[in-house]
Amino acid sequence: MKRKKIFNDPVYGFITIPYGILFDLIEHPYFQRLRRIKQLSLTYYVYPGAIHTRFHHALGALHLMQQAIEVLKSKGVKISSKEEEAVCIAILLHDIGHGPFSHTLEGSLIGISHEEISALIMEDLNQKFKGKLTLAIKIFRNQYEKRFLHQLVSSQLDMDRLDYLNRDSFFTGVSEGVIGYDRIIKMLDVHENELVVEEKGIYSVEKFLIARRLMYWQVYLHKTALAAEQMLIRIMSRAKELTLNGLEIPVAERLNYFFIRSFNKNNYLSDSKELLSNFTRLDDNDIFYTLKIFEEYEDETLAYLSSCIINRNLFKLEFSNHPIESDRIEEVRRKVASMRKYSGLDPRYMVFEGVEANLPYSLSKEEIKILFKTGKVLPMSETTDYSIQSKIVKRYYLCYPKH
Amino acid sequence: MKRKKIFNDPVYGFITIPYGILFDLIEHPYFQRLRRIKQLSLTYYVYPGAIHTRFHHALGALHLMQQAIEVLKSKGVKISSKEEEAVCIAILLHDIGHGPFSHTLEGSLIGISHEEISALIMEDLNQKFKGKLTLAIKIFRNQYEKRFLHQLVSSQLDMDRLDYLNRDSFFTGVSEGVIGYDRIIKMLDVHENELVVEEKGIYSVEKFLIARRLMYWQVYLHKTALAAEQMLIRIMSRAKELTLNGLEIPVAERLNYFFIRSFNKNNYLSDSKELLSNFTRLDDNDIFYTLKIFEEYEDETLAYLSSCIINRNLFKLEFSNHPIESDRIEEVRRKVASMRKYSGLDPRYMVFEGVEANLPYSLSKEEIKILFKTGKVLPMSETTDYSIQSKIVKRYYLCYPKH
Amino acid sequence: MKRKKIFNDPVYGFITIPYGILFDLIEHPYFQRLRRIKQLSLTYYVYPGAIHTRFHHALGALHLMQQAIEVLKSKGVKISSKEEEAVCIAILLHDIGHGPFSHTLEGSLIGISHEEISALIMEDLNQKFKGKLTLAIKIFRNQYEKRFLHQLVSSQLDMDRLDYLNRDSFFTGVSEGVIGYDRIIKMLDVHENELVVEEKGIYSVEKFLIARRLMYWQVYLHKTALAAEQMLIRIMSRAKELTLNGLEIPVAERLNYFFIRSFNKNNYLSDSKELLSNFTRLDDNDIFYTLKIFEEYEDETLAYLSSCIINRNLFKLEFSNHPIESDRIEEVRRKVASMRKYSGLDPRYMVFEGVEANLPYSLSKEEIKILFKTGKVLPMSETTDYSIQSKIVKRYYLCYPKH
Amino acid sequence: MKRKKIFNDPVYGFITIPYGILFDLIEHPYFQRLRRIKQLSLTYYVYPGAIHTRFHHALGALHLMQQAIEVLKSKGVKISSKEEEAVCIAILLHDIGHGPFSHTLEGSLIGISHEEISALIMEDLNQKFKGKLTLAIKIFRNQYEKRFLHQLVSSQLDMDRLDYLNRDSFFTGVSEGVIGYDRIIKMLDVHENELVVEEKGIYSVEKFLIARRLMYWQVYLHKTALAAEQMLIRIMSRAKELTLNGLEIPVAERLNYFFIRSFNKNNYLSDSKELLSNFTRLDDNDIFYTLKIFEEYEDETLAYLSSCIINRNLFKLEFSNHPIESDRIEEVRRKVASMRKYSGLDPRYMVFEGVEANLPYSLSKEEIKILFKTGKVLPMSETTDYSIQSKIVKRYYLCYPKH
Repeated sequence: MKRKKIFNDPVYGFITIPYGILFDLIEHPYFQRLRRIKQLSLTYYVYPGAIHTRFHHALGALHLMQQAIEVLKSKGVKISSKEEEAVCIAILLHDIGHGPFSHTLEGSLIGISHEEISALIMEDLNQKFKGKLTLAIKIFRNQYEKRFLHQLVSSQLDMDRLDYLNRDSFFTGVSEGVIGYDRIIKMLDVHENELVVEEKGIYSVEKFLIARRLMYWQVYLHKTALAAEQMLIRIMSRAKELTLNGLEIPVAERLNYFFIRSFNKNNYLSDSKELLSNFTRLDDNDIFYTLKIFEEYEDETLAYLSSCIINRNLFKLEFSNHPIESDRIEEVRRKVASMRKYSGLDPRYMVFEGVEANLPYSLSKEEIKILFKTGKVLPMSETTDYSIQSKIVKRYYLCYPKH
Repeated sequence: MKRKKIFNDPVYGFITIPYGILFDLIEHPYFQRLRRIKQLSLTYYVYPGAIHTRFHHALGALHLMQQAIEVLKSKGVKISSKEEEAVCIAILLHDIGHGPFSHTLEGSLIGISHEEISALIMEDLNQKFKGKLTLAIKIFRNQYEKRFLHQLVSSQLDMDRLDYLNRDSFFTGVSEGVIGYDRIIKMLDVHENELVVEEKGIYSVEKFLIARRLMYWQVYLHKTALAAEQMLIRIMSRAKELTLNGLEIPVAERLNYFFIRSFNKNNYLSDSKELLSNFTRLDDNDIFYTLKIFEEYEDETLAYLSSCIINRNLFKLEFSNHPIESDRIEEVRRKVASMRKYSGLDPRYMVFEGVEANLPYSLSKEEIKILFKTGKVLPMSETTDYSIQSKIVKRYYLCYPKH
Repeated sequence: MKRKKIFNDPVYGFITIPYGILFDLIEHPYFQRLRRIKQLSLTYYVYPGAIHTRFHHALGALHLMQQAIEVLKSKGVKISSKEEEAVCIAILLHDIGHGPFSHTLEGSLIGISHEEISALIMEDLNQKFKGKLTLAIKIFRNQYEKRFLHQLVSSQLDMDRLDYLNRDSFFTGVSEGVIGYDRIIKMLDVHENELVVEEKGIYSVEKFLIARRLMYWQVYLHKTALAAEQMLIRIMSRAKELTLNGLEIPVAERLNYFFIRSFNKNNYLSDSKELLSNFTRLDDNDIFYTLKIFEEYEDETLAYLSSCIINRNLFKLEFSNHPIESDRIEEVRRKVASMRKYSGLDPRYMVFEGVEANLPYSLSKEEIKILFKTGKVLPMSETTDYSIQSKIVKRYYLCYPKH
Repeated sequence: MKRKKIFNDPVYGFITIPYGILFDLIEHPYFQRLRRIKQLSLTYYVYPGAIHTRFHHALGALHLMQQAIEVLKSKGVKISSKEEEAVCIAILLHDIGHGPFSHTLEGSLIGISHEEISALIMEDLNQKFKGKLTLAIKIFRNQYEKRFLHQLVSSQLDMDRLDYLNRDSFFTGVSEGVIGYDRIIKMLDVHENELVVEEKGIYSVEKFLIARRLMYWQVYLHKTALAAEQMLIRIMSRAKELTLNGLEIPVAERLNYFFIRSFNKNNYLSDSKELLSNFTRLDDNDIFYTLKIFEEYEDETLAYLSSCIINRNLFKLEFSNHPIESDRIEEVRRKVASMRKYSGLDPRYMVFEGVEANLPYSLSKEEIKILFKTGKVLPMSETTDYSIQSKIVKRYYLCYPKH
């Protein structure tokens, strides 16, 4: 495979892509769209550097996949060049179904998960590329016999996670997320068709698990970023609510398509062509542009919240280990309602609660496997003197205006 | 001055800002807008990491200013806390007048230079902050007696340049731009009211000059990025042309204000209030949103070029050391015109020429001064065995579709 | 305090030292000697980059101390310039009593702990510098009323640990040890005379504890480095044994002083002047030079082991969670004894066992304290959902030739 | 070629070596000796981090060679696996002939250049490894038909230079030496049997040339380091002089061999076996150990200078663009002689002059070649608007005690 196209990457230095289908997929408008979708939604309001995009993450995950494949082949694992290309396509496109503001608006705006849309887009591309993605799709869906290929794309230690921890840590500047990804990759091997990590990489895996857990609390669920994202979700709900009430809300054109429809798992396939055509032209710009329209719209609640996001006037968010008591919510709601500057605003959108959960490591899902020099293979949880945290951690929150 | 607010910065680790007017200015919507303006326009089409913003650059330059002031004070230079605050405000706001896509659209869209708008905005903020910016504005305009303060903000070795070389180099991943900014800052001193660099920093200054020159050719004037930016400029010209011809082009709302007006140096002050009110709500999102509208507009030239930008289908750009001969332009224009897929497109927008100039170091403008141990001060050009490049380098270019 | 002397440091960029007593102490031969003592003994046989010295570590810890003091003062903690100087001296000299190969030979060669010698040297320097170290020594010994000053020098979260994790991680290239030291330092405060960390730094502290634990297993107790160091200890024991048996072993001159004496806690003060005079001229060079003499000495055991170290022909080391059974030791010893190439070598020096223990975090010793926004202070172990590992981990080992 | 052995490297992360002859050569005592020879002699007295060794540099250059070979092969350059192994061996061993303190003592102590000893050692290893180094030696000596292989080992743009600039810059912390080595390597190609750089790498090459020039003045010829090294040379000269006068100077054993002989180009081959046997056991430890003996030796000049090195009491060094006038030397010598503390010391060793020359880039030697897209190849000097510095720069110096 002749390598040719070089991308500069602040994280890895250079990423080298062979010309051919991988390069053509990157050039495709569906993929170029990822340049306009930030990896971490509004997190940049807390960590100003976190303006990196899904485009860059996908390239980075591809880069790590290429390294992983090379390591495995050097250890005698049989991987044909067709399989190599397919697993590279699979990782390149694993996030292709992300819409504007990534996870944040998945539920409130689009209504369908990004995985489902990713699948739709891959099928569409497969047609456009005359069946050349068939094997990649099989691997992506875990329908291919060499299970370890799927595990490289999606498992508790996949190239996706390695890249996003690296990249998010780099761009936020949060050193707690730094991981020894290159060491982990060098320690990968395959045993009975499963991805395993050699014994010598055990501390690097441990570090990776801890880094992921710390990044959750320090970045992904940072309370200010969470407040911003929840406010954005409320803005979209409010706009949809008004639309349902018959108002004609001005929004970015493509966005309108999603405002006047309620997609869900059961109905989105009915006209997937039109859905895709609209979805694949959406990006972060449409949302921000819409916020700026909302800012001057007559509905005061919508206008107020939009202005808050635009000018980074973010709500306060309190975490609690227990569900917020309804008394407390009522108390805060009354207080806010009593303030002159909030009169006329819908209190349900001004004070709201919610919960975020995080499972650092799952014992029930397929565990990470460690390969010992003796040939024995053990799940990670049985090999370390460090007590792996494998309980779901829930954090309840209450969110309301600062003053 | 009690320091408090901490920003994570991938480049410097942490940036610490004292609460007070600096923090309040950062919180102001005028400054928050810089979060939505990329530092390097469309350069991210070549260097995918280059999506950093003017917001981050301004914070970075402020960070370096704080360090420079600390160094100078430790060497006995008298700087009052009022002056310190003022020079910090000046650097923080030095780019506040940048509009969408920074330099690219300064001429074709806004019509007035960012420096002029910066001045307008500072005046406006000075009113809002009850005169607290008066000294900062004086320093910014080089009207303050301690000239070295202005030189820290704007000269051939100012905190602006140190930060942007650092930052652009970091986010593009182009190591040719790496500079020893911390060493340079540690070597700063003041001599007869002028900023000087101690003799021991001479190689770091030399490296800085070279890095800047290399960054010009490798990043700022990279031919693919230049092609993209010139195409964007042509799109705006085309849209303005159509507007002048009486067509009502659909564009993002605030943008319209600039489409139906032609501002220039002489007329922009007539209603600066309205101008500012519109300008300060514009950002990159409006341009991209507008491109997406243009993509479906009836004028084929506008639609084609917009689609090219959106999908990264960029023109080819040829550099030459001499002006492009008109024969050559005609030849290419004929060729393009003859291709079926370009029929119906206005040839002036499909094939165009231009020139870029770069002056690595100016001998006529105030030179960088070196302070020797003996007490002698010499301009940089007389102190080094390296022949400083101080001629304007011009590169002519011709730009046209790839196939 | 006027800052002046700048050291380049690959880890922190620049370290700036005020001229005055700190600089004079660095210039003193006692301190310059640390340039010739590697921080990590023979660890460079596993991690080739780990050739950094105690000199550099001491400067680094001083650098962090200066930052910590600045942070504390900015938060209103009262620290006089006398106290600042003293705590800086204390950290600068905290390891001044380390002998050749640091911890490795503390027991077998010198016989007295490096802390005891550090104390001796500080007293000696205090005389030479006419009492200017008195306060530093008080702080070092935890006899000063402001307890937090001592905690900055020596506690479970001191500047020593922050620097060595940073530095060892940097030079070994083991990313598992990377810590957010700058964030931790920015979060330091003092509460009721005790060093505390603000709530926002809790994840950085957690990461620090984990990094330290991982560095133990991956670096400090790496089995190959441990084997090398244990072999070196055996070489010294053998040489001492032969000396006691009346042989006159040729060794580096100053080393001889320690060969023919057996120092311990009780007797070393009898002639501390002579002791110091000899000790302060010893460094790693003497040991390596001696190994090269031993390599050609008539005692075959001594010659063989020395040659093994010089040429990096290191023994195998097996770890076990339980004490090595005597049967197993005997078995290996027999096997080794039966090999022709080892005939004539003393089997006690060819096969040996031992144990290493590591306490990642002590609940009994003073815990790290977290200061909450509410004003409440809690020990680290009560504030995190991460289960801090606070049990001593013991690893037993058996060490013998590879083939 | 199955890759297996992994070295951690602070500079490149990981270096992976195939087991086989490369690994066996690294394990050989001749190569392990390089662990005890600092890359930059006494430069660590100026840049405390610069304690990296020839061992690490050789591994690093090997690492870059592996990358370069991979790039060239991917571009269709024919390189057999035999040739690949050979060029890797050649770069691994290119500095194997360096003695203690590298360049510093080449002239005054050993008397033969390290290139000549490298050749001797390679021949010796070739015998030991039964002819397996024959091709490597041919490449090293530029006697192999594929000239570009030799150019990778030794030319104006070879893997040696790329690694040492990288590494020296990293460990000194001098950012002026940072180069885009990975970009340069990715741009390598072969044209008519010559190594060339693709046009797109032209700025990286330019940067590399400048970095090398700046490193000369900022590191390699730093005046304090130069003073230290010249003092060390004078110590060895003095000791040899005394030996010739019949005194029996105590020195480290193997060193003695070189003290009582005067090797030069013409006589060193007479008993090369004995020469090698002594040389290959020498390292930095012997020199430092010897300095400590000299420090107490009766010859006051020798003792004084040795003490100065040990305790970093370094002479002052003045640079000049012209030869030092003899009047000036005499004046300084008189002044020094008149000081009581220097009475009894030989003035020739207390005040001395010298000259250092540096040729940043040679136009006469084979130039670096640039390959243009058009297929044209031009020497670097004809392709850039930067005026490459290609004149020998001479700096004369005078060196004497500080007070």
